[in-house]
Amino acid sequence: MESNVSFRVRYIETDAMGIVHHASFLAWLELGRTELLRELGQSYREWEKAGVHLTVGEVHLKYRAPAYFDDLLEIHTTILESGRRRVVFGYRVTREDALLAVGHTIHLVTGGDGKARVLPEEFRRLLGT
Amino acid sequence: MESNVSFRVRYIETDAMGIVHHASFLAWLELGRTELLRELGQSYREWEKAGVHLTVGEVHLKYRAPAYFDDLLEIHTTILESGRRRVVFGYRVTREDALLAVGHTIHLVTGGDGKARVLPEEFRRLLGT
Amino acid sequence: MESNVSFRVRYIETDAMGIVHHASFLAWLELGRTELLRELGQSYREWEKAGVHLTVGEVHLKYRAPAYFDDLLEIHTTILESGRRRVVFGYRVTREDALLAVGHTIHLVTGGDGKARVLPEEFRRLLGT
Amino acid sequence: MESNVSFRVRYIETDAMGIVHHASFLAWLELGRTELLRELGQSYREWEKAGVHLTVGEVHLKYRAPAYFDDLLEIHTTILESGRRRVVFGYRVTREDALLAVGHTIHLVTGGDGKARVLPEEFRRLLGT
Repeated sequence: MESNVSFRVRYIETDAMGIVHHASFLAWLELGRTELLRELGQSYREWEKAGVHLTVGEVHLKYRAPAYFDDLLEIHTTILESGRRRVVFGYRVTREDALLAVGHTIHLVTGGDGKARVLPEEFRRLLGT
Repeated sequence: MESNVSFRVRYIETDAMGIVHHASFLAWLELGRTELLRELGQSYREWEKAGVHLTVGEVHLKYRAPAYFDDLLEIHTTILESGRRRVVFGYRVTREDALLAVGHTIHLVTGGDGKARVLPEEFRRLLGT
Repeated sequence: MESNVSFRVRYIETDAMGIVHHASFLAWLELGRTELLRELGQSYREWEKAGVHLTVGEVHLKYRAPAYFDDLLEIHTTILESGRRRVVFGYRVTREDALLAVGHTIHLVTGGDGKARVLPEEFRRLLGT
Repeated sequence: MESNVSFRVRYIETDAMGIVHHASFLAWLELGRTELLRELGQSYREWEKAGVHLTVGEVHLKYRAPAYFDDLLEIHTTILESGRRRVVFGYRVTREDALLAVGHTIHLVTGGDGKARVLPEEFRRLLGT
C-alpha cells in the first residue's frame, strides 16, 4: 500500500539558494506518514491518544533534484518494515515524472514518556504486520 | 532592564528572496525573552516547571531592513508592561548600528493546561511588578 | 473577495506546550495570500518573475485559541488596502466555527533587489485598485 | 580538525512530544558546518560569493536520546571526505557526556545555478584535500 499526497511548496520552505531548504523535506515525509496512517485506519493523533508514539530513530534521505516555491509536489509513502518494536517508512518526493528525493525513516515504538514499548496488537494489524 | 543577546543568522532562516524570512524573526524574539527571563533569575524552563506559562496572545512586528545569512545580529529585549494576568515584551533587532526590526508581543499568564491564571507573587517579583 | 484555504496542522508546527507554535501561523498567512493572489489571476511566482515582490513590512496577529496537531483549519484572506506602494492583507484562521487567530500584514512593493518600486498597472488591476 | 559549537535549544525547535523535533537537528548540523568552514579560513558566505556552493545531496542521521528546550548542547563537526566534486561532513550532537545524535551529510560542489562544478584549488586547500 502506498499513500500519495499532493501539496504545494511554501515560500517559508525555500532558502537563499532560491530552492527548497533540505530540512523542509522532513516536514513532507512527516506529512506522508501521517496520511498513510490515516488511510490505514487510525490517524496518528489517535495513536498518540492510545499512548503509542513512533519516535524518529533514523533519517536517511537522498536529494536528486531541487524543488522550488509553489511547485506542486507529491509525497509517496510506504511501510518498508514493521515489527513489534520498530516501523520503517519509505518515501519518494516527486514533481510530475521527476524524482526529487528518496529516503526512509526508522521509528521506534515508544510511550508518551519516550520509553520503548511493544506495538499493541491492534496497531500491528493496521500496519499489516 | 534590557537583555542583549548576539547570534548569527542561520542558512535555514533565509528564503528565496535571498534574505531572512520574516517568520524567522519570531524565533529571535523568543530567544530574547528566554534570555531576559534567565537574567531576571529563573529560566523559562523553571517557569514551566512551576506551572506558569507565558502564552503568546499577540505579535506586532515592523521590519525596517533585511537581514542576511551569517549576519551577526543582536536582539534587545525589555519588559514593557507586567501585571497579574499579562506581560508585554518589547524588542529591537539590530546589526551594529542598523535597526532591522522593532516590535512587541503580549503574553497571557496560563497554566500548563492553557487556562488563564494569576502570575504568582514570586514571578511578579522577578519581573519587578 | 475572500480566499478560503483548508489545510491540516503538521506535527512540526507544534511545540512543547502541546499546541501549535505561534510562529507557524505566519506560514499559514503566507499560504493564504499565495492562494488569494492565484485566485486573482497571477500566482506569486509570476509576480516574482515580473520583478514585483510584496516584501513583508509589518505583521500584526492576535491569537484567540490554540490549534493542535492534525486539526483541519481554514485560512481566510482578503485585501484590506492596496495602493501603488503597499498592499495590506487581512486574515482569519478558523477551525469550524472557532476563530483561532486574526491579523493583518503590510507589504511594500519592491523589486527583486529589495528596493521600493511602484506596483505596475497590470498588477494593480488584479488587486482591484 | 573538529569544530565544536555550543548553543541552546530554542522553544520553536520543540514539538508536541515535549522534545526537540527531529528536523531541528538539521539546522544544527548546518550551524556546525558553517562554523567549521569559518574556522578553516573562509566563511560559507565567502564561498557563495565566490560562486561555490555545497549543495546537500544526502542526509543520514541517527537519534540516540532526546533533546529538550533550553538544553545547552554541542555540535561537533568534522570533514570525513573531501574531493573535487563532493565533501562529506560528520557530526555528533552532545549534551555534556551524552550523545544525542550522530550522522553525516554528503554535499555536491555546485555553482550558484545549482550545476555541478569542480571545487576550486583555493577551497580544496582550505579543506586540506
